[in-house]
Amino acid sequence: MTLAVGIDVGGTKVLAVAVDPADPATVLASFRVPTPERGPDIVAAVTDVARNVLDQVEANRLGAVAAVGVGLPGLVDLDGSLRAAPNLHGGVGAAIRGPVSAALNLPVVVDNDANCAVWAEVLAGAGRGASHVVLVTLGTGIGGGIVVDGRLQHGAHGFAGEPGHMVVDPSGPLCPCGRHGCWERYASGHGLAWLAQEAATAGQADGLIDRAGGDPTAIHGEIVVAAARDGDAGALAVFERFGWWLALGVANLVNLLDPDLVLVGGGLADVADLYLDHARAALVGEVMGGADRPETRLHVATLGSDAGAIGAALRAVPPALPPFASR
Amino acid sequence: MTLAVGIDVGGTKVLAVAVDPADPATVLASFRVPTPERGPDIVAAVTDVARNVLDQVEANRLGAVAAVGVGLPGLVDLDGSLRAAPNLHGGVGAAIRGPVSAALNLPVVVDNDANCAVWAEVLAGAGRGASHVVLVTLGTGIGGGIVVDGRLQHGAHGFAGEPGHMVVDPSGPLCPCGRHGCWERYASGHGLAWLAQEAATAGQADGLIDRAGGDPTAIHGEIVVAAARDGDAGALAVFERFGWWLALGVANLVNLLDPDLVLVGGGLADVADLYLDHARAALVGEVMGGADRPETRLHVATLGSDAGAIGAALRAVPPALPPFASR
Repeated sequence: MTLAVGIDVGGTKVLAVAVDPADPATVLASFRVPTPERGPDIVAAVTDVARNVLDQVEANRLGAVAAVGVGLPGLVDLDGSLRAAPNLHGGVGAAIRGPVSAALNLPVVVDNDANCAVWAEVLAGAGRGASHVVLVTLGTGIGGGIVVDGRLQHGAHGFAGEPGHMVVDPSGPLCPCGRHGCWERYASGHGLAWLAQEAATAGQADGLIDRAGGDPTAIHGEIVVAAARDGDAGALAVFERFGWWLALGVANLVNLLDPDLVLVGGGLADVADLYLDHARAALVGEVMGGADRPETRLHVATLGSDAGAIGAALRAVPPALPPFASR
Repeated sequence: MTLAVGIDVGGTKVLAVAVDPADPATVLASFRVPTPERGPDIVAAVTDVARNVLDQVEANRLGAVAAVGVGLPGLVDLDGSLRAAPNLHGGVGAAIRGPVSAALNLPVVVDNDANCAVWAEVLAGAGRGASHVVLVTLGTGIGGGIVVDGRLQHGAHGFAGEPGHMVVDPSGPLCPCGRHGCWERYASGHGLAWLAQEAATAGQADGLIDRAGGDPTAIHGEIVVAAARDGDAGALAVFERFGWWLALGVANLVNLLDPDLVLVGGGLADVADLYLDHARAALVGEVMGGADRPETRLHVATLGSDAGAIGAALRAVPPALPPFASR
């Protein structure tokens, strides 16, 4: 059996999986390590987790690994180097493809992590059967991947698919990228905490302040989730606001790309029941001509935290058939 | 010679041209009428201008017209009907393709006007040789067309390419579409007037108030252009601000699509010397990782006010070879 190894380099962990491209949702072997701080160490970490999974594949006689895919959290150029990474500063400028390929003696494909994730969802997850799919990954920030007519989009230089730094309010809060009011200041994990802190400061979320030990600036995402689960009205209102911000950015993407499916992935997808219906309700009014066009389908991605690694594997060993016949 | 007729339905005029798809920048015949107010009359106007051009082609023995393309200012579905049109309310819901085809006894293709324009620019204008092109048309509002890997993008339902209604400030001025702070409230002809009026109200453009007869709300685009040509400091500052807003939206598009070329078309392209360098300077800071990626090429479209009609013709009769070999 021809297998593929996929590696997802996240802000906190480096995860490797081995899959059969014909059945990629079934992870045959996996291994993870914490993400190292320094650039050169990222190549070593990627190589280490890959070797561990390759050893598992060999020990259990699972098949022959044909190639390795690596998903990176930032701008990956067409040569497989990381050119910008707001949440992985140590890795910027690092050549990844060449050193990893030399160390493993296998072909290596490198891509953006959310590009990998949308590719996995289209081939084996919530995006199966859809031709035009946009995935937004709601984690610390917002990543994105775009599939058009069944093709993963990379743009002219490999940098396509960064909706998180779409400016939606130039007088909004400062983003680590240097601009103000990027979408990920509002509709991400960081944004959830910010929206909650704003509500608390405005006297609309006293319950959240209590849970944060009396300090509004100590409110973080987990506190808001826990309070919402307990029915705290202030926390529920924060999630309604969060859903509205999500819809605002998704509407911008829909106006530009007209997908037939938008998927929400990343860590915050796990609590989508707290905001997704709010986002869906807001979308009709936010999309251009919303009442005169098919409703935008907004769903949760289904491959969870493995999506990036599975998709990286599928970038390295393409499936036998394209997911969607091009027009 | 096999010819194509293209028709561009604008907010003020309906223009028809006849071209040879092998040399589409050369307009062989043309005719225009004012845009009618009512929906059914749009079909009649399109048919009339097409017949006039067909008659010219026949009278001058220019060739045989194989098909007719129509560009419409709004959301055009894949069946060729207009589904939403902020600046052509009378035409919404109108079936265009069927009635026009029946009246002319020719195949008819219907598409969004800016989609047609970008297609013309890629095949015969400023976009030749580029694989990933975004065109923004700066007129009363902002239209858009997207080419990826040499393919014109329509999305899942035909509605792709509407950057004008990308919200860039939800607390901004109300847009006729019902939302607040759409990009076309700032970086369009309407936006130019609004920015000038804001500057005048803030006491930063007394020269513009004088030219508008003492009434800041009477300042319109032509006044700002004339004042800037005369070196009026307030007007020049308005154009610098205009360039910044243009860059803000273009950066959002670049972050998402990573084109190798962004083109500016529409009426305001005629005065691009007043703002384009400001926009280029701002782009480096506004694009994600701007210092670590190739500079975004931002240029003026070259086919001018004929681009939409020429592109509509090319949508109806595709050229013999694709403009860019797909990867």
